[in-house]
Amino acid sequence: MTLSSDFHVYDTTLRDGAQQEGLALSVHDKLAIAAHLDDLGVGFIEGGWPGAIPKDTEFFALAAQRLSLRNAVLAAFGATRRPGGTAATDPQVRALLDSQAPVVTLVAKSHVRHVEYALRTTPAENLEMIRDTVSFLAGEGRRVVLDAEHFFDGYQDDPKYALEVVRLAAEAGAEVITLCDTNGGMLPPQVADTVHEVLSTSGARLGIHCHNDTGCAVANSLAAVEAGATHVQGTLNGYGERTGNADLVTVVANLVIKQGLPVLDPLRLKEATRIAHAISEITNVVPYSRQPYVGASAFAHKAGLHASALRIDPDLYQHTDPTQVGNDMRTLVSEMAGRASIELKGRELGYDLSGQDELLARVTERVKALEAQGYTFDAADASFELLLRAEVDGERARYFDVESWRVITDARGDATATSEATVKVTAAGRRVVATGEGNGPVNALDHALREALSPAYPELRKLQLIDFRVRILDAAHGSDAVTRVLIETSDGSSSWETVGVAANIVEASWEALVDSISYGLMRQAIAPR
Amino acid sequence: MTLSSDFHVYDTTLRDGAQQEGLALSVHDKLAIAAHLDDLGVGFIEGGWPGAIPKDTEFFALAAQRLSLRNAVLAAFGATRRPGGTAATDPQVRALLDSQAPVVTLVAKSHVRHVEYALRTTPAENLEMIRDTVSFLAGEGRRVVLDAEHFFDGYQDDPKYALEVVRLAAEAGAEVITLCDTNGGMLPPQVADTVHEVLSTSGARLGIHCHNDTGCAVANSLAAVEAGATHVQGTLNGYGERTGNADLVTVVANLVIKQGLPVLDPLRLKEATRIAHAISEITNVVPYSRQPYVGASAFAHKAGLHASALRIDPDLYQHTDPTQVGNDMRTLVSEMAGRASIELKGRELGYDLSGQDELLARVTERVKALEAQGYTFDAADASFELLLRAEVDGERARYFDVESWRVITDARGDATATSEATVKVTAAGRRVVATGEGNGPVNALDHALREALSPAYPELRKLQLIDFRVRILDAAHGSDAVTRVLIETSDGSSSWETVGVAANIVEASWEALVDSISYGLMRQAIAPR
Repeated sequence: MTLSSDFHVYDTTLRDGAQQEGLALSVHDKLAIAAHLDDLGVGFIEGGWPGAIPKDTEFFALAAQRLSLRNAVLAAFGATRRPGGTAATDPQVRALLDSQAPVVTLVAKSHVRHVEYALRTTPAENLEMIRDTVSFLAGEGRRVVLDAEHFFDGYQDDPKYALEVVRLAAEAGAEVITLCDTNGGMLPPQVADTVHEVLSTSGARLGIHCHNDTGCAVANSLAAVEAGATHVQGTLNGYGERTGNADLVTVVANLVIKQGLPVLDPLRLKEATRIAHAISEITNVVPYSRQPYVGASAFAHKAGLHASALRIDPDLYQHTDPTQVGNDMRTLVSEMAGRASIELKGRELGYDLSGQDELLARVTERVKALEAQGYTFDAADASFELLLRAEVDGERARYFDVESWRVITDARGDATATSEATVKVTAAGRRVVATGEGNGPVNALDHALREALSPAYPELRKLQLIDFRVRILDAAHGSDAVTRVLIETSDGSSSWETVGVAANIVEASWEALVDSISYGLMRQAIAPR
Repeated sequence: MTLSSDFHVYDTTLRDGAQQEGLALSVHDKLAIAAHLDDLGVGFIEGGWPGAIPKDTEFFALAAQRLSLRNAVLAAFGATRRPGGTAATDPQVRALLDSQAPVVTLVAKSHVRHVEYALRTTPAENLEMIRDTVSFLAGEGRRVVLDAEHFFDGYQDDPKYALEVVRLAAEAGAEVITLCDTNGGMLPPQVADTVHEVLSTSGARLGIHCHNDTGCAVANSLAAVEAGATHVQGTLNGYGERTGNADLVTVVANLVIKQGLPVLDPLRLKEATRIAHAISEITNVVPYSRQPYVGASAFAHKAGLHASALRIDPDLYQHTDPTQVGNDMRTLVSEMAGRASIELKGRELGYDLSGQDELLARVTERVKALEAQGYTFDAADASFELLLRAEVDGERARYFDVESWRVITDARGDATATSEATVKVTAAGRRVVATGEGNGPVNALDHALREALSPAYPELRKLQLIDFRVRILDAAHGSDAVTRVLIETSDGSSSWETVGVAANIVEASWEALVDSISYGLMRQAIAPR
């Protein structure tokens, strides 16, 4: 596959993606994300709005010093000059030049009502603002992209005016005119028809910029490309205002894998899962497990029903090979668990169970019995591996013995409650009594238990409880209800999940905590001391 | 708009949606979700697989006694009979009849390789299994839907065989043949072409069932409907295996609002946001804020740039009126509450707030502030009514004063943990110290608190804590997570929900408990003693 350098993969995570509710990026965050985007192989990184947002001005200044991009060029985003002025003397247009970005993306109105209400000028002056600004920047040697805001709504409202914006911008020197579905209300057929009509009428090079308000941002982007657009804008993880922008990785993966269009190097696409997750670490937005291609669940199968066929030919049950986007097939050990899925899951964890019928039967039996009590191993690989390992070895590794534990939570009046835990354990031949405080009973128990075990296992100091989930099962029966707790623990570089089930929420948490620590030791191949 | 009763809006949340990683529904959960789905106005609720999954057999038995559906009919899902047998004597087919569901949805293979590898029978026997099972069930008076699994992949592989499945099923009496993109790898043009070809070749009535692996589940569903499918399957909140199923609310909202197809009563569509959120409370899957139409961010605007234009004409900046799906435009970082919805909710609870602008503003302000801290009043009417009543009366009724509370949970070794609580309160002028035991800290606190208050308020003896739900919320700015607890309390004839939020799970529970007891007294019109 020869890469199509003519096609623009244009990322706007740092500008339009940053509009997402609750997302706030520092300059340092933006530089780190830009490096990841370059690694992914996008052609364009829109860095922000220099001159309007001080942080973005700083981003371009620092990017020039610190970023050495191998695949992408930077684009500075900004508006056309003010009504009644000239582009050459407009301070905001000047800031775009000063950013030193080789590409300038100008947002312009193409919808008459927006010209009147938001820009507060005349349709004719808006056209002049576009012509003047585009030709000035092109004359200064910049590649110019024109983002025609609210284009699809504007085209429905007054197609002549919208078309005139496209024609004029192309004539003034814009390399691409991007048709923007700014409010995100379009469906694929409308997008396809509009792109087709504008292309055949204007002959301009067209781009597409979609939002996901109808759940169709990806399909709309593909429809535009099929109709002739050769520049596609989107964001990593679909970040963006309201329902987000088109998810760039999904769009590109569909173009490359499903449609065979060479818009991104397949070797770079293999980095997509890693990069999407790395960027979510920077933005601190919890990754969406159901995200197409790169989500944690995207290639996860509850195998029960079709595990045997899955073993014979995984392609029967997956729409594409997950390694193409750097993801993996995972088998979930679920309620419908059969021997085949246990075997498959074992293989993933590095245990070859094929032919060991008796062992497989024992593990399957045990999983089923525990699931009937309320355990789930879907989301608790670590507890499953402890169980599997115990069956393989004949017994579970005993890193420590628990004599007792206790946690007290109390408060006076309306004051904030405090929790304090005491645990008594024996490890490496020594009995230890330790206490811990925390902002809740589980937190306190975690602190106390790790404190107690640290003399014997100093490796535990770096572990950290990072997530805690609770579910009450069969709550309708009141006293019969059991509580299921899932705990996620990190050692700084990776994380694992464990499960506990008991009538008492604290006891369920304790069980998951004990599993989490045992697993933390087992995975470092530490023997009981 | 006259409702098109010919079009099937078919929900499979309880069956295919339940395949989602980490999602486990109890029978009680399924009944509660079914009631919400009926409220939403879907035509079909696929309840599960009776005969194969014991919990699903129980669901259909209980549904027959307890659910009185006004809009939907139940569908039982199951497979065609076993190879070499007869439908009439197949125990699993019998279980479908025994479920008493008026609709039976049969999954059948339409892809030759799946017939061979997964079903392990011949293509001819598979056809016979379909013919036999469909005609048997139709003969028993059931409406039969045939879900043609892996249809699109099968059609690419061997179109003749795939078509024969459709033709044969229709001939045998299936009302609809659903073309399933089981692996989710299709794009809209392929779906449209295939549906068009199958429809014109077979003349059968067709349905569509999509998964979101290419990010196109919604667009694929719409493409199928445009090509002539008149039955669309999906799940609430897009729950489902891997990347999920087509999000039924998004598909239906697009059909109704964007395409003017009367497939759902517009008055029911207005319940979509409330119902989508209520179901996420039951599944305990964190709602996706960027979800189209019903997401918390779906109509949220960072208003800065276009605030004034937004005030003049909101339609310039939103793709549709959010009230059509029961959502709200938000211009600030505030949560969902607007005065109109507070007024509406007040009216529901028997408080006429119309014209009381100052009071309404105060309550709205208070709700917004609390929601920003993590409270939710969607599912905690009782806590909302306490808040509203306090604002109406000028202060909250003080039934008792809390001096302090404490709860100890402990265990020896692997023994079952016990919880013991002590509360010190003053009620009816008397200071009382009381203790209570329970199978968990909240249970123990509940017992102790009611024990302490019973001398002053003997009416509390009949109250019972019947449900308890916990969710960990990420704080807005990456500081400590907070815990939200919802408690449901019953007095034997009715029940109410209250909410508490704190870093400490026990403190959050205590807060919800105090509300629950205060509300239990207030609703009996008991004055503080």
